[in-house]
Order: sequence, then structure tokens, then C-alpha cells
Amino acid sequence: MPKEVNRRILLVNRPKGMPEESDFKTVESPIPEPKDGEVLIRTVYLSVDPYMRGRMRDVKSYVPPFSLNEAITGGVVGQVEASEHPGYRAGDLVTGMAEWADYSVVKGEDLNRVQNDPVPASTALSVLGMPGLTAYFGLLDIGQPKKGETVVVSGAAGAVGTVVGQIAKLKGCRVVGIAGSRKKTDFLTKELGFDAAVNYKEDDVPNALKKACPNGVDIYFDNVGGEVSDAVIRLINHQARIPICGQIALYNLEKPDDGPRIQSQLLINSALMKGFIVRDYRDRFKEGMAQLTEWVSQGKIQYRENVVQGLDHTVKAFQGLFKGENLGKQLVKVSEIR
Amino acid sequence: MPKEVNRRILLVNRPKGMPEESDFKTVESPIPEPKDGEVLIRTVYLSVDPYMRGRMRDVKSYVPPFSLNEAITGGVVGQVEASEHPGYRAGDLVTGMAEWADYSVVKGEDLNRVQNDPVPASTALSVLGMPGLTAYFGLLDIGQPKKGETVVVSGAAGAVGTVVGQIAKLKGCRVVGIAGSRKKTDFLTKELGFDAAVNYKEDDVPNALKKACPNGVDIYFDNVGGEVSDAVIRLINHQARIPICGQIALYNLEKPDDGPRIQSQLLINSALMKGFIVRDYRDRFKEGMAQLTEWVSQGKIQYRENVVQGLDHTVKAFQGLFKGENLGKQLVKVSEIR
Repeated sequence: MPKEVNRRILLVNRPKGMPEESDFKTVESPIPEPKDGEVLIRTVYLSVDPYMRGRMRDVKSYVPPFSLNEAITGGVVGQVEASEHPGYRAGDLVTGMAEWADYSVVKGEDLNRVQNDPVPASTALSVLGMPGLTAYFGLLDIGQPKKGETVVVSGAAGAVGTVVGQIAKLKGCRVVGIAGSRKKTDFLTKELGFDAAVNYKEDDVPNALKKACPNGVDIYFDNVGGEVSDAVIRLINHQARIPICGQIALYNLEKPDDGPRIQSQLLINSALMKGFIVRDYRDRFKEGMAQLTEWVSQGKIQYRENVVQGLDHTVKAFQGLFKGENLGKQLVKVSEIR
Repeated sequence: MPKEVNRRILLVNRPKGMPEESDFKTVESPIPEPKDGEVLIRTVYLSVDPYMRGRMRDVKSYVPPFSLNEAITGGVVGQVEASEHPGYRAGDLVTGMAEWADYSVVKGEDLNRVQNDPVPASTALSVLGMPGLTAYFGLLDIGQPKKGETVVVSGAAGAVGTVVGQIAKLKGCRVVGIAGSRKKTDFLTKELGFDAAVNYKEDDVPNALKKACPNGVDIYFDNVGGEVSDAVIRLINHQARIPICGQIALYNLEKPDDGPRIQSQLLINSALMKGFIVRDYRDRFKEGMAQLTEWVSQGKIQYRENVVQGLDHTVKAFQGLFKGENLGKQLVKVSEIR
């Protein structure tokens, strides 16, 4: 780096089940040049996120599908190489949506400036970016946590779950995380202050949950769906709230699978379930960012990033999301900040 | 009537599946006498309601289970025969919770006075009672209907559904009812002003719904659950709201059945689903009653009651709820107002 050519990762097949290397293709092309109002950025970090799996399908969802034979796009932190936008100049650190590539040309108006101090710029893709805001609004706006309540979060060791649990602790809740390895559950209880954690791959989940939630479940922040969620929903209390943030257990299924109908549980408990994406709260991003920045800078919220090196490991890092390989936010480091 | 003895209908077995006559037993005993603060009422109308099926199970629900070998209790309209409470005297018409019986002794403080004019006293069990309030709060508070939106209601020809659809029309919505016979669907479209109605027993439900909801579904007021709900939920729009009022299709199942998981639909549409019972809104009953009374007296909301004659037909009337026999509110007339 810098390369004379620009490597770009295209989607060439719509994955069936778990995405495979052959669903993607890396092509090389000249480094593009910005036109009026545009900025050329060199990718420093790129984000791989579970929601991207949905965009690989050719179906209606909350974001339009990726086009075949075009580059995947997602959140990046980059450094400006050349600018035709008055707001940016070479060397600036920025965040925005850009390609899985060494370089992208992006409209200046779609970028936001980021700092690398006091917290690293990578946090713009984790605790101070989309995952952090997702946790903030889903838990606080839909979940409405009250002191003494029990909050269960699935996908607890991931980019969103780690923040959900820590905010819930700040709100005085009992926090129980569900994750897929002993390393992760230990991380949750020993490093992030969760009150209990359940390893869904090894524990008897219904019994472990009952033990971890002696007073039932008031809020279930759901990142995963499937049988893990079935077990939590059986334990909900009167007036429980269930923010639906993700359903990663289902993303690689060919069809939505069947499960126990949940409406009766919601009915007898006067419980609420609400799907959301962070964009629903775009009018309140400033509020969320300000609060998260304060908590992070005060050390009240810790963040963890799982960084792999090199653009050529992007697809593997993406696949790893569905294998439970990441602890904290999964990032790919593509180049150094200079 | 009046009888010298009091017939009371006891629950003697917890039903498995559809309740059978043998799950109930009618016993005779002397007419009870009110003690201090109590009132003896003669039952005029008694209400059979789907939610009572839940109370026949020995499981946690939103109301405690009925006890075996005790009389079933539910909403009644009665006439005071004797009073030891200063607020009531013989001849007064009242409503409250009382036994499936010719006579009940009830605490005066648990009763409310009703009129038989300008609308019949029976409406205290239908449009101006629990079913009307259920429709009012579920639709308006959870559903939040906006002009031009599409509202689908299942169990549309029942006590709650008929009111939901009419309020939705008053709010300027397109209203689609789902019911189980041509007689009912005709009633909805020709007499109550619904824009369309689907007969779930004869129509191809997914296609009929698609045709009836060309702009998708913004609110689904669910009284029934099961496959009918699966079909509606597939059509929900962004930010849809789904009040869960009942799941009558499931009440007689031994176990909750499986169905397509719905969380993904809620997620991609940022949709809300909320269970509720009318009691959640008890602090606002006055508001609801005032508005419903105004609408009914202005002829803006019609009500329909399906009345069977005689206490000895109570169990059959109750069973009929699960066979789709009632159009409007199902009542049993036990004695005449005198």
C-alpha cells in the first residue's frame, strides 16, 4: 500500500446458505479519480456486518439488494487521497459508505469527518458508529429499561450486544448475555460486567436461562432469532419489551424456518415486540453519538474490535460473522493511517 | 323465572381441545342471600367470551384459572333482587362479574349501574362494554390508525372485530375484514361499511388478501392467530402495527403449534407487535366509554348481538364461539328485565 491498482470485491453470485468464496470475485482496476463534489478515499478500515447478508438476496428488505457483478458497499473509515469537495482535503480521516476496495470515490456530502484521538478512528464503525447507535436506540427507545429489570441480550459478544449489555448495566438492570463460546461468556461476565452469561452451544439453554433470570425477562434484545429466542420468550414477564435488531441465526437459511408461534406469549403478557433499524432514529443520531462518546470517554462503556489485516481477508471475515468467530466488532484493516 | 332454586354451571373438568358438555355440570342450590355490602342479582344477560377458554386451563395467563368444581364467572348484566349495599336497590340494572347462574351475590363495589335506554342494557357486555373498549384501545392506542392506511382485522364479525372495523372507517382507513362465512363477509361489507372482506374458510386467503390490500397492510388487528395471521403478516408495510387481541384459532390446541417465524418480517419492516388486554387501559375506561357511547348514539357505530335464550344453552353458546357461529357479540339471555 498504496497500490497502483485498485482491488475491488464484487458480488458475482447470490449466496445460497453460507456465503462462499466463489460468490465473490476480486478484480483490479485503475485508481479512480474524483469529479466535482467527490472525494477519493483510501480505505483504512472496512466493516463487515451481518445485515449485509440480507442485501445479497434479491428480495425486498430494509435496504436494497446489492447488484450482481458490482462491488459490495458498506461502512468504512478512510483517509482522503484527493478531494474535489471544498469540505475535505488530502489526509482527512472520514467515515461513510464505500466499496470493499482499496480506494473509493464518494460524494463529499455523504462523508463525515472522524478523529483518531482520544479514541481510535475505527470506533466510528463500532461503538461510536452504527452498532453503537443501534444498541443505544434499540435498548433505550424500544426497551425502555428500568432499574432492577432483567435484560437478556443475544449475540451478546458482538458489536451491538456488547454495547447493549453495558448500557443496560448503566441503567441499573440485571444483564444476561447469550453467546456461543466460553471465551465469549467469560468476556461478558469478567470484563464487561454482565451479571450472567449463557453459552448457547454448550449449556442447556432453557435451564441456564431460567437460572440466570430468576425474576423472568423484562427486556429481550434479540440479535439472533431461532431457538435461542424461543427459549427467552418463554420467560418474558408482564409488559416485556422485545427489540428485534437481527436474526443472524436465520440469515443463511433458504427459507424462514418454523418455530413455536409467539403471539400467545405476547398476548398473555401484554408484551411488545418491535423490529427496527438504526436508520429509523436518524433524526436523533446526534443525541446518541453525544451520549455514547461521553460514556466511552469516561470509561463507562468499553469497546472491543476484532481486526483482521488485509483486504484479501474480507470475505473470510464476513463469513466468520456467521460462525461466531468475532468477539466485538469485526473489522478489516486495509491500509494504515498516514 | 324467577326460580325457587339457583342453577349454577360449574367447571368439572379442564377441557382438552374443544370444550365438551361433560366438562361442565349444572347444579341446583338455594338462592343465596347478600351479606353486608353485597347485592343479590338476577342474571339477565350473561356473556360468553373466547378469553374464558384460557381460564379453563391450569396455567399462568393474564387472568387466574377457574377452579375446578366452582361456578364459571364472567361478565353479566343483572337486575338487583335484594341489596345490602347503600348504592343499590331492588330493580336496579347493573353489570359486573358474576357466575354462570340464575342468581349471584356480588359485592356492591364491584358493580356498575347500567341503563336500558336509549340503548339496551345488553350493550354493557358488547359495544359499550369489554369488547367495545378492547377494540377502542387496541386499535387507537396500539394501532394508531392514520387516514388512508389499510387496516385488516381478523375475527372481523365478532364482538371486538365489528367495532374495530367501524372505528377504523371513522378514522378514514381502508378496512378489510377476515371472517368465516359468506354471511359474515356480506354483513361486514354490506351493513358495516368494510371495504372488503375475506372468507378464510372458502377463499384462497393469501391471494384474496393481496387483492383486498393493494397497498399492503399498515395495521393488523389480530383476534385469531394461526395461518390466517401468517398470511396477513406477509403483507405488512414499513412501520406496520399489529395489536394482538386474541388467538382464538389456538385456544383449543393442546400445545401452541409451530408456524413461520415472524421476527424477520417485523425486522425488515420496522414493525411493532403488541399483546394487550383491555384491563391494561383501565385508567382510561371513562374516555373510551364516553367516545363509544357518543358514536353509538349518533349511529356511527352499529352493534350486533347474537342472543340465545336460556341458561341451559350457555355451554353451547360458549362452544359456538370456537365454531364461528356468532355474528357480533354472543350473549345468553337468562331472564327478562322486569
